[in-house]
Amino acid sequence: MRVLGIDPGLQCMGWGVIEQTGSRLVHVANGTCKTQGTDLSARLLSLFDQLSDVLDRHRPDEAAVEKTFVNKDGSGTLKLGQARGIAMLVPARAGLPVGEYSPNSVKKTVVGVGHADKRQVMHMVKLQLPGCNPESPDAADALAIAICHARYGGSRGIALREVRA
Amino acid sequence: MRVLGIDPGLQCMGWGVIEQTGSRLVHVANGTCKTQGTDLSARLLSLFDQLSDVLDRHRPDEAAVEKTFVNKDGSGTLKLGQARGIAMLVPARAGLPVGEYSPNSVKKTVVGVGHADKRQVMHMVKLQLPGCNPESPDAADALAIAICHARYGGSRGIALREVRA
Repeated sequence: MRVLGIDPGLQCMGWGVIEQTGSRLVHVANGTCKTQGTDLSARLLSLFDQLSDVLDRHRPDEAAVEKTFVNKDGSGTLKLGQARGIAMLVPARAGLPVGEYSPNSVKKTVVGVGHADKRQVMHMVKLQLPGCNPESPDAADALAIAICHARYGGSRGIALREVRA
Repeated sequence: MRVLGIDPGLQCMGWGVIEQTGSRLVHVANGTCKTQGTDLSARLLSLFDQLSDVLDRHRPDEAAVEKTFVNKDGSGTLKLGQARGIAMLVPARAGLPVGEYSPNSVKKTVVGVGHADKRQVMHMVKLQLPGCNPESPDAADALAIAICHARYGGSRGIALREVRA
């Protein structure tokens, strides 16, 4: 099973693809989709195109997207929400099941504790995917999300885990 | 000029198409894209497909999307943000300029006051687009957004007005 993990963001959207064979995980690719400027619709279109290109190139079987942290800054939440809409849409359009995981679930699975910082996530991702060198902290987060999805048993495991959470 | 107005929402996304010839506005079509269920990616994909179909059928030249109201409910803002991401993406993908208007600007333009209720909006939309019977309050809001975009001079007028706002 090949899994695409996505760490949503409007300015910087991390992505990472891993391959699972039994319990073994192998790094395939990772990167960052970037957008800037004041034209929101153009930025969302650019994210859509960049992410669609990632799917075309790496043909994942399943996808996982981080559950966005909702904070007190409504305008920030809205921006992130719009980018997250694209992150959820692109794999769904390709017919992939899309899992959703909270940042805490991802960190607990990959680092062992729910409140790990970005440096720890980067370290543990490199340890669990030998030879992988994430392009950015967002790409490392995306790989961590993919690892989390694989460890949870992919789309078959989601329903069960959601009940437990 | 043919304008598509969109009132974004995850459960209920209103849309309305009008045609402007000089200062005359004519109703073309309106409707509501609906989604339900717990699979967010499937709901966003459904909105994408329904909205793409509206564009295919009615071939607008420009689009306008309501600026979402950011409230204290972060989780509601996030849901709306994700739906709004799709509302911005679909016309951008078709190469249309996409204007954004706050609910207050729309109401001021269409009703004359910034704090009009949905009934007043429905009434004034029917008055300004003779023969039109909006399918839902969300569809009436979408037509109001299209009217607002046309009255603001479309994409040529946006830059100027944004500076003034």
